Amino acid sequence: MFKQITILGPGLLGASLLKAAKQRGLCRRTAAWSRRAETRAKCEGQPWCDEVFADAGKAVAKADLVIVCTPVDTIVPLLEQIATKLKPGTLVTDVGSTKSLICRHGRAALPKKIGFVGSHPMAGSEKGGLEHADAELFQGRACFVTPLVDTPTKDVDRVTRFWKALGLEVAETTPEEHDEIVAHLSHLPHLLASAFCAYLGTRNPKWVQFAGPGLRDTTRVAAGDPALWKAIALENREEISRALDGFQKELDHLRAALHNAQPFALQHLLERGRDFRVRLRPLGEKI
Amino acid sequence: MFKQITILGPGLLGASLLKAAKQRGLCRRTAAWSRRAETRAKCEGQPWCDEVFADAGKAVAKADLVIVCTPVDTIVPLLEQIATKLKPGTLVTDVGSTKSLICRHGRAALPKKIGFVGSHPMAGSEKGGLEHADAELFQGRACFVTPLVDTPTKDVDRVTRFWKALGLEVAETTPEEHDEIVAHLSHLPHLLASAFCAYLGTRNPKWVQFAGPGLRDTTRVAAGDPALWKAIALENREEISRALDGFQKELDHLRAALHNAQPFALQHLLERGRDFRVRLRPLGEKI
Repeated sequence: MFKQITILGPGLLGASLLKAAKQRGLCRRTAAWSRRAETRAKCEGQPWCDEVFADAGKAVAKADLVIVCTPVDTIVPLLEQIATKLKPGTLVTDVGSTKSLICRHGRAALPKKIGFVGSHPMAGSEKGGLEHADAELFQGRACFVTPLVDTPTKDVDRVTRFWKALGLEVAETTPEEHDEIVAHLSHLPHLLASAFCAYLGTRNPKWVQFAGPGLRDTTRVAAGDPALWKAIALENREEISRALDGFQKELDHLRAALHNAQPFALQHLLERGRDFRVRLRPLGEKI
Repeated sequence: MFKQITILGPGLLGASLLKAAKQRGLCRRTAAWSRRAETRAKCEGQPWCDEVFADAGKAVAKADLVIVCTPVDTIVPLLEQIATKLKPGTLVTDVGSTKSLICRHGRAALPKKIGFVGSHPMAGSEKGGLEHADAELFQGRACFVTPLVDTPTKDVDRVTRFWKALGLEVAETTPEEHDEIVAHLSHLPHLLASAFCAYLGTRNPKWVQFAGPGLRDTTRVAAGDPALWKAIALENREEISRALDGFQKELDHLRAALHNAQPFALQHLLERGRDFRVRLRPLGEKI
C-alpha cells in the first residue's frame, strides 16, 4: 500500500502503528524519528523499524506516508519543520487527541502538493513508551478522520483505507465535532479522574489499602503522563470547559439530593447513569 | 469452624460467601433465606446451599453464624425481625456498605446474648445476582470489621478469623471511620461516575460509538443497581456530602485552570492525581 511509512515520535502509538503495519504488509519500509537519543537507541534493532533518524527532515524525505505521533502541542511546529523536506504526493496525518487547531494550522504549514488529513485513533494506554508496543492495540477501536471542507476526497480515502487496514472502525467528522466529542468521552473523564485522585491525595495516606476494583477502574486513566494531558487539556480547553459546565449541573443536583436526602432524585440520577452506561458497546464489538 | 452458616439475602455476595465457605470447609451446613420466591427457587439444588427458607426466623433458628447480605436499608429491620429467633451464642454480622447506623441500631435490635459485629468485605461486581456467585470473589480483598466500643473481643476475633479464612485482609476500624473511608473510596466515585453518565446521556446518542477503554473503565460502576446505591447514598449521605465538598474544591481549581489556560496549574493537578493513583496497590497484593 505504501513504500515507506515514517513515524515522527515512536512512543506507544507510533511503535504499535509500525508493528501493526509491518505485520499486515501495509508498507515495504518503515522509518522513525525521535528527538531523544534514548528513544532512537531503543528503536535500533526493533523488527518493526528499518531506519532511525535524528533529523526529522531526513526521516520524511523518502516517505509516502508520514504519521506524526508526538504530543499535541508539538505537532504543528514539527509539520512546519518538515514542510520543505516532503516529496510531492506524500500523505501526512497525525494521531493527536485534539483536532481543530492541528488541522487548521497543520494544513497551513504544508505545501499544497502534500496531502494532509488529521486522524485520531482512539487507542492507547496509561502505560506509554515503545517498549509496550502492541500490534493489536488498534483492533476494533474507533478512529476519527477529520478532513477540512477543502481536503481532497482521494486523500481522505487513502487515510481511511490505511486505518481500516489496521483494524480500526473509521468515522469521518469535522475537526470541531471531533473536539466536542472527545472533550466529553475522553478529556473530561480523564481530568475528573485526575482531580478526584488529587483530592484523595490530600486525605489520610493509609486509606489506599482499602481501594477496591471500583476505585481502581474509575481512576486508572489518572496514572497517565501529566505533560501529555496538560497539552491536550490546553488545546481543547474550550470544549472541555463547556462539558465541565454541563457536568457541574448534574453534580449540583447530586449535592442537593444528598443534602436534602431525596430518594427519588437520587434514584433518578442513578437510573439515568445506568441507562447511559449499559448502552456502551462492549469493546471489540463492531460499530 | 461453624456448624451452620445462614445467609439472609443470597445475592452475589451472599451466594459467593456460602460457596467459598463450603469450599474452604468453614461450616458443616449452609442455609439461605430470601424474601423472593424466584431467588429461593434459584437456590434450590445449588451445591453451596443445603436448605432454603421463606421465613427468616426459621432460617436463623439453628445457625451459629448469621450473615445479613440484604440492601443496607433493610438490614436493621431484618435484625429486629429475627431477634427473638436466634439461639444464645449465635454470632451475627452483615456485609452492608455503610456501618454507623447499622452497627448502632443493629446492636440495639438484638438480645445481649447474641454477638453482633458489623463487617464490610470490599468485594462485589456491577453484575449482581447469585448466578454470578464466585468463591474467589473475596481473595486478597480488604474487609472492614467495625466493632462498637463495648463489643466483646471474642466476637470481634471470631468474625475476623472467619473473613481471614475466606482470604480477605481484615482491618478493624470504628463504624464512623469506615463510613468516612468508603465515602471517599467507594460511594463518592460511584456517584460521580453515575452523575457523569447521566450527563453524557443528555448529549448526542450517537457519541457512544466512540467510547474507548478509558471511558468504559471510569464509568463501569455506574452500571450498578440504582436501588442498592440509592440506599447506600442515603445511609452515608453526610460523609459523602463532606467528601463531595472537598472534591468540588479540586474541580473549581480545574475549571479555573482551564478557563485561564494555566499550564502550571493543570500540570500540578495532573501530577498530584498521578502521584495518588500510582500508590494504589495492584489488586491481590497483600495489604
